[in-house]
Amino acid sequence: MTNHLISLAAALALATPLLAQDDAEAPPPGPYEIVEQAAAEEWIAIPAEDLLVMTLAPDADGNERQVVIQLMPAPFSEDWTANIRTLARAGKFDGNAVLRVQDNYVTQWGDPASMADDFEPLPTEGLRPTSSANYTIPADAIGLPRLLADSQRARSLETDEPVIAADATTGMILANGLLDSYAQLSLPYKGWPLASNYGKDENEGNARVWPVHCYGMVGVGRGMAPDAGDGSGLYTVIGHAPRHLDQNIALAGRIVEGMEHLSALPRGKGTLGFYEDESKRTPILTVRVAADLPQDERPKFEYLDTEGPSFARYADARANRQPPFFIVPAGGADICNIQVPVRRMAE
Amino acid sequence: MTNHLISLAAALALATPLLAQDDAEAPPPGPYEIVEQAAAEEWIAIPAEDLLVMTLAPDADGNERQVVIQLMPAPFSEDWTANIRTLARAGKFDGNAVLRVQDNYVTQWGDPASMADDFEPLPTEGLRPTSSANYTIPADAIGLPRLLADSQRARSLETDEPVIAADATTGMILANGLLDSYAQLSLPYKGWPLASNYGKDENEGNARVWPVHCYGMVGVGRGMAPDAGDGSGLYTVIGHAPRHLDQNIALAGRIVEGMEHLSALPRGKGTLGFYEDESKRTPILTVRVAADLPQDERPKFEYLDTEGPSFARYADARANRQPPFFIVPAGGADICNIQVPVRRMAE
Repeated sequence: MTNHLISLAAALALATPLLAQDDAEAPPPGPYEIVEQAAAEEWIAIPAEDLLVMTLAPDADGNERQVVIQLMPAPFSEDWTANIRTLARAGKFDGNAVLRVQDNYVTQWGDPASMADDFEPLPTEGLRPTSSANYTIPADAIGLPRLLADSQRARSLETDEPVIAADATTGMILANGLLDSYAQLSLPYKGWPLASNYGKDENEGNARVWPVHCYGMVGVGRGMAPDAGDGSGLYTVIGHAPRHLDQNIALAGRIVEGMEHLSALPRGKGTLGFYEDESKRTPILTVRVAADLPQDERPKFEYLDTEGPSFARYADARANRQPPFFIVPAGGADICNIQVPVRRMAE
Repeated sequence: MTNHLISLAAALALATPLLAQDDAEAPPPGPYEIVEQAAAEEWIAIPAEDLLVMTLAPDADGNERQVVIQLMPAPFSEDWTANIRTLARAGKFDGNAVLRVQDNYVTQWGDPASMADDFEPLPTEGLRPTSSANYTIPADAIGLPRLLADSQRARSLETDEPVIAADATTGMILANGLLDSYAQLSLPYKGWPLASNYGKDENEGNARVWPVHCYGMVGVGRGMAPDAGDGSGLYTVIGHAPRHLDQNIALAGRIVEGMEHLSALPRGKGTLGFYEDESKRTPILTVRVAADLPQDERPKFEYLDTEGPSFARYADARANRQPPFFIVPAGGADICNIQVPVRRMAE
């Protein structure tokens, strides 16, 4: 065997006639071409109830700025996503602002009044209590044990051995060839970047799964533990994945359009990137649940099925870049470098 | 043993009376406190010959924008860093511009004329030829084999076993407790984030080492292989570490001040983030080697010795965040989440 980890993606790519082209010299398709060529049935529509449209004040040149957020589906972070919908429908985000932009970390938004020490939010009917116990969910809840038991999902290209296997030295479990620095395993699954402690405990029934703080993921601001945040203050990751936040804070979704309106904002000069000069804050005009918009105004998005063959080929192509530009394929990738493709649906 | 990987940092932290404080309830110092408390002799001054001062045109509000770049020291990327100094001293960067800003990827700058298909640069005296063979250097060149042989550097906190060990299942070598998704090992060493294929080949004499594409690292733009770039076009990483570029392109340094002037620029709307509207390009007024500036105008920077005890404690604190904010320490971190501290020297 080699000491390269071979991904599920590579295994599936083998079964696909990558090189069966008229011109045998043509390079294999790159990650973006693979996504473009994916079959229509591999794309999964995102429910309008899971999409938020956040309209920022126009920029200095008068250009409109719209950000679309996809909320995580059940069973992930259900109390927070329910609260975010409730707060949006109660108009609680309208008139809020971007309060904090810290380089290589996060952009955070919410109610400017919440910055005051004695802030007491007005009650919102129907808000659920939240708990840090729900930063993670049981691995059973998404069928992870069955996935891991199915070694067909991840066999070495060269040895045909399963690559999901406990590692004798470290106890780490390798899934889909992805080595992870922060968890027993990580994998793109059910449309989201996930990590798990599966294999850490002897009692696998206790295994947990959690979403991962990749670029563009949206999380719920909170105070000191045990506060778990109610969903009224949110942030998105604008730098290298701050994975130390995993399991320590609720993730509630991701930016699927308009990320540049949050990532390219001026950095705040105060502690943690808060704006010392309040005039630098970007106003949030409205936040609406897409399902509440008239049909012709609803943004419609879809994501590439992470359990389909094109995603596997895409992941493999991300991990093994090819000529003419690349010389040395990495032979691996971390979970946050295999972003799940999301796109606007054709009209 | 547990299946947590315990870092060198953790091992060293044990020997340090972290909790021997007046108030036994006080939380252990966080990463930033550890850096602040580091002894003066743990800081290493960066030579003025290794610092570049890049002055951008003022922003829309008339604020000055200055970026300071630290070039990598020998034996890393020597031909490119020599060329960058030569080009700076010949004034070849003056009047250049930021040509490309691609979200979650890179900001790239150079000569706008280089965008033309028929561009032929005017010759610059003394430019060295470059080769992709030098994207990596021999592991011997920085003493990596000796480091790895010294198991005192990395013993498990719980088992006292060396954690630098070939892993029977994967052949991966674990150094300082850092698992890496892209290489046999990665470690912060000699002041820089490095990765290596040490342990991949049976003949260790062939092992190579290379710098890693972390946030803020500066690389050398190039055309299709085998072109290796001459240093006249540069980029910096403004998103999640694009580690697939490692070993495929020359890294030449990192941004040590003014990163926000490159990371918060408007994203380009063209392919790969190039600006379709040339008026959106940020002009570069001058680029100077700090050693060529009058003494009182030279920026002076220092970095925390990556082989010292404070860096080990800092790395451990990054991998194991503590209450009152954090609940679950990750027990690990990737190389790009343990950025080497660099700061301006006290006047």
